[in-house]
Amino acid sequence: MMTYESKVTIHMVSSLDGFIAKKDNSVSWLESSDSFDKGIVLTEEDITAFLKTIQCYVMGSKTYEHALRLGWPYGDVPVIVLTTRDLKSEIKNVQFYSGDLISLVNHRLKPTYTNIWLVGGSKLTKNCIRLNLVDDILISIMPIILGDGILFFDYIGKEEKLHLKDVKAYKDGMVELWYEIKKE
Amino acid sequence: MMTYESKVTIHMVSSLDGFIAKKDNSVSWLESSDSFDKGIVLTEEDITAFLKTIQCYVMGSKTYEHALRLGWPYGDVPVIVLTTRDLKSEIKNVQFYSGDLISLVNHRLKPTYTNIWLVGGSKLTKNCIRLNLVDDILISIMPIILGDGILFFDYIGKEEKLHLKDVKAYKDGMVELWYEIKKE
Repeated sequence: MMTYESKVTIHMVSSLDGFIAKKDNSVSWLESSDSFDKGIVLTEEDITAFLKTIQCYVMGSKTYEHALRLGWPYGDVPVIVLTTRDLKSEIKNVQFYSGDLISLVNHRLKPTYTNIWLVGGSKLTKNCIRLNLVDDILISIMPIILGDGILFFDYIGKEEKLHLKDVKAYKDGMVELWYEIKKE
Repeated sequence: MMTYESKVTIHMVSSLDGFIAKKDNSVSWLESSDSFDKGIVLTEEDITAFLKTIQCYVMGSKTYEHALRLGWPYGDVPVIVLTTRDLKSEIKNVQFYSGDLISLVNHRLKPTYTNIWLVGGSKLTKNCIRLNLVDDILISIMPIILGDGILFFDYIGKEEKLHLKDVKAYKDGMVELWYEIKKE
């Protein structure tokens, strides 16, 4: 099998208790009012430079519709939306896909892009972990307990050893944990 | 109401996916084989000095029995075990308690001790959060996804804003997040 210098990274923003969405889908909790003195602040330039490295986003259709409502944050970067529904897109570079996840990631995306980001929802990211399609997991933990909602990991039913790659704490109390899934 | 310079801290060791115990109760996952270059290492003296500041532990009866089996790690520090069972202790300074949590914490422990640690299980810690008896939460996240077991937070049913107090990453890939629960 050919290997590519290509990485699939899951990125999710989560509460401390592991929820990525509230039941009512409200998003105000994503804005922290906390203040962590030792935390870092990114400049617009830092963020732009970082986002430029991402070559392709993969997401479920609810995450896609949610992103549309909030104001599309992915610019012209290619986006694959997993869905069996008959959706049309007004956004450039959005493609819908209803086939097999393994062949999408391993045969279509990995040979084309080196930095692929999987940004939810939780069903899609869990399936990708179960199918060994994920290299890295980046979790941004907001300083809040939500107490209810949609769990990111839930009961994934599979043990995975991780390698901690980086930890960053931000001025607003958000903590970013970057892990690599260890291959056996 | 009188206030005391007293703090109740929950400390739990968790997997990245939020589990504090495996279904089979095995504990080998608590020993990390990961290596994080930028991580810190504590000396025996650091740990001893830190543990000396803890004046009282509170735990459920399963956590107590688990600690007994693994080799009692609490020395002669006072330990309160919540249980309705008729347990006897061979360990000095262990007391069993079956009454009300609020009166235990607010009327008995807080006036006596300034640094009280709540070390599980998850039912007890959740109840204490729900009853507003907790000041701080310290979570040590091991570099592993367990995929199943007992969730620490679970669906606690209550939203709590947090203040990030400290973040420490260790050489073995463990990350310690220290939060204060914001009082409204």
